[in-house]
Amino acid sequence: MTKKIQVGLIGCGTVGTGVAKLLLDHQSLIERRTGVKFQLKKIADLYPKKNRPFKLPSALFTKDAENILNDPDISVVVELIGGIEPAKTFLLKALDRGKHVVTANKALLADHGIEIFQKALQKGLQVGFEASVAGGIPIIRAISEGFVANHISQVYGIINGTCNYILSEMTAHGSPYDTVLKKAQKAGYAEANPALDVGGIDAAHKLTLIAMLCYGAGVTTKKIFVEGIERISPIDIEFAKKIGFTIKLLAISKEQGGTIELRVHPTMIPSTHQLATVSGPFNAIYLKGDAVGETLFYGRGAGMMPTASAVVSDVVAVSRAHDERGIIGIHEFEDMELRPMDKIESEYYLRVEVVDKPKVLSQITGILGQHDISIASVYQPQQDHGAKVPIIILTHRGQEKNVQKAILKIDELPFVVDKTVIIRVEHFRKKEGKEKG
Amino acid sequence: MTKKIQVGLIGCGTVGTGVAKLLLDHQSLIERRTGVKFQLKKIADLYPKKNRPFKLPSALFTKDAENILNDPDISVVVELIGGIEPAKTFLLKALDRGKHVVTANKALLADHGIEIFQKALQKGLQVGFEASVAGGIPIIRAISEGFVANHISQVYGIINGTCNYILSEMTAHGSPYDTVLKKAQKAGYAEANPALDVGGIDAAHKLTLIAMLCYGAGVTTKKIFVEGIERISPIDIEFAKKIGFTIKLLAISKEQGGTIELRVHPTMIPSTHQLATVSGPFNAIYLKGDAVGETLFYGRGAGMMPTASAVVSDVVAVSRAHDERGIIGIHEFEDMELRPMDKIESEYYLRVEVVDKPKVLSQITGILGQHDISIASVYQPQQDHGAKVPIIILTHRGQEKNVQKAILKIDELPFVVDKTVIIRVEHFRKKEGKEKG
Repeated sequence: MTKKIQVGLIGCGTVGTGVAKLLLDHQSLIERRTGVKFQLKKIADLYPKKNRPFKLPSALFTKDAENILNDPDISVVVELIGGIEPAKTFLLKALDRGKHVVTANKALLADHGIEIFQKALQKGLQVGFEASVAGGIPIIRAISEGFVANHISQVYGIINGTCNYILSEMTAHGSPYDTVLKKAQKAGYAEANPALDVGGIDAAHKLTLIAMLCYGAGVTTKKIFVEGIERISPIDIEFAKKIGFTIKLLAISKEQGGTIELRVHPTMIPSTHQLATVSGPFNAIYLKGDAVGETLFYGRGAGMMPTASAVVSDVVAVSRAHDERGIIGIHEFEDMELRPMDKIESEYYLRVEVVDKPKVLSQITGILGQHDISIASVYQPQQDHGAKVPIIILTHRGQEKNVQKAILKIDELPFVVDKTVIIRVEHFRKKEGKEKG
Repeated sequence: MTKKIQVGLIGCGTVGTGVAKLLLDHQSLIERRTGVKFQLKKIADLYPKKNRPFKLPSALFTKDAENILNDPDISVVVELIGGIEPAKTFLLKALDRGKHVVTANKALLADHGIEIFQKALQKGLQVGFEASVAGGIPIIRAISEGFVANHISQVYGIINGTCNYILSEMTAHGSPYDTVLKKAQKAGYAEANPALDVGGIDAAHKLTLIAMLCYGAGVTTKKIFVEGIERISPIDIEFAKKIGFTIKLLAISKEQGGTIELRVHPTMIPSTHQLATVSGPFNAIYLKGDAVGETLFYGRGAGMMPTASAVVSDVVAVSRAHDERGIIGIHEFEDMELRPMDKIESEYYLRVEVVDKPKVLSQITGILGQHDISIASVYQPQQDHGAKVPIIILTHRGQEKNVQKAILKIDELPFVVDKTVIIRVEHFRKKEGKEKG
């Protein structure tokens, strides 16, 4: 007799609808592949009659999640309501009642994951969260299983589709940020309140999960340096192009000698690098392991069906697994040292907005020099005495601490009219030597 | 107490040495991640004292694989000797004795996989073969688990590093095939006998495994149309470049309406496509699923440590799994129809080598016309009356059957001095209409 697994779905918005559709439409495909019949037994949603992109059987719906959490036949609970509460309570209750859980809720896992993972561990149950990072791309599986035998030294991710869409459009059309943001909202690539996405927080949540898998459970979002894309202007993009670079919001994790570095910020990367060619709402993760070398994963990071694909893969995975350790990789390592942002080193692109007058440049470069920041080149694209103009400075490799201190001083200069825009430059050189000069 | 899994390794060549090194050096890393201590207990190799890239403890070695197959403490056997026998016997014996098996042996699995998978299924054991396709890239896991809820409509793989290295070098330097092959052999990217690689057979073995996972166990290598890269010349590469294309050996699997199409051949693809940028010994797999959409996986497809990384990931996976179905995806589907090569449609690049004289072109185009092959453009790069010159023809979309028939006729023409080179052209258009004209 075919094994049957009954599934309960809490939250039937866009992704939830996709999950229900896949479980219903592809039931026999999945059964042929796995030998298990996965049956969607109940859907809990406050608005059962809401208009959905696909029609779902109304008999499946309940308004009360307890009807799923209390159902002894349901062995896998999928949480897709998002937010911290009541999602967290539902997940913990499901685990308490012996059910595996699957979620796409990166915010919840990034900030409360440890509690949930530990509960699962205690109970010998699984937490599936493939859909929480990079939608349809099976990156959680790749890191936790595929690369289990690797020290992972570098991860560079384009893991926020909204930011990547906006930056791609700005790059393609030279349009300003605000215009493109509105277009992104219209096209459904940005929320009405886009702050979490464009501010880099969403990418930081995902980076937290990636870093947990790579380095252990001690990582939290609070430890990640985050800068968003709100201040990137067509000037920056234009200039980057001119020198053969592309601006991307990157989530970066590096490990060296037991110290890890975690940050999310706009980054200039060579336009010839594979990550530079990832455009629109696509996601990509570039990862380097000591055994596997360089790898890259590319695909849709969001959207109803790609995300649903990942959720359903987890429904299958959690019910197949049999392992008292839960998801591989979520574990306590010896505390790894986190390199404070102050101590990172990079090359920098600085855009200082000034009122154009004599000696402006010498004062700015003077401050950089005093802070041990060596200048590679300076550009003044416009000259317009008395008007607001940008000065663009590319630095050699220097310490973030020094750059930050210098920028504070520069931004206090009387002729500097706006906060200086900082974009870090990443060359992906094989060895990043100390090129201080 | 920590769970301990004892591992036996049969075959300690390059990859085997890498596996031993990873299991020994990264034992504590893997234990922290999985909660399991994986202990390499024995290595069987006919030449224990051979010089290896890393020094391995001589106490681990035995010359007799039976010492591993008979060891009741060993629960995972890794087979890395390659070839059909005795590898097959060892794997079947290991399964008979209740041991999970891990192998990188694509030739064996492509031709005798069903027998091995069925034995594993009977015994409730696992067969890990991540390392058999695309080395370090966890593509087996992605297809069988990550995309378990997807109908997979397209797979395009660069999955033979030797061919990709040779074609990349030919493209970069305009060098002839023979010169580059020698260089590849020197650099260790091609075997002394390169026939399996350059002839496309190795890629076909890997495509067989991919197709088994996507469509069920009825696929065998014999059913795959295979052409190698031996006849690609700098002329072809130069011409492709001129029209914005790049030549790659692609393993292609397409499914439409229950019919699948499997083939391995040199293919012209737009140079702007991500697959065109995959150069040197790297591998990449582009895959399209109905839920997940487009994805791409990129990484090292061979080499000691990338392949060892995949093998060790399987050692972990097979010991964690608990599933009477074995590896997901290896199953019997309803028989899917395989589209005979005759019936595929494509655009074609044809290079006809002729002795230059009047009316040569009209006779060739006449034959194409009689066979319902519509010509998009014709190039005669050189004119040299009485000498051997190439004629290059690009066709519109046409039927393979007609092209093959036409080529037979063309190759019989008295002034045609060599077999015509056929390269199929792939545009990756969203919808491939019937553009017959």
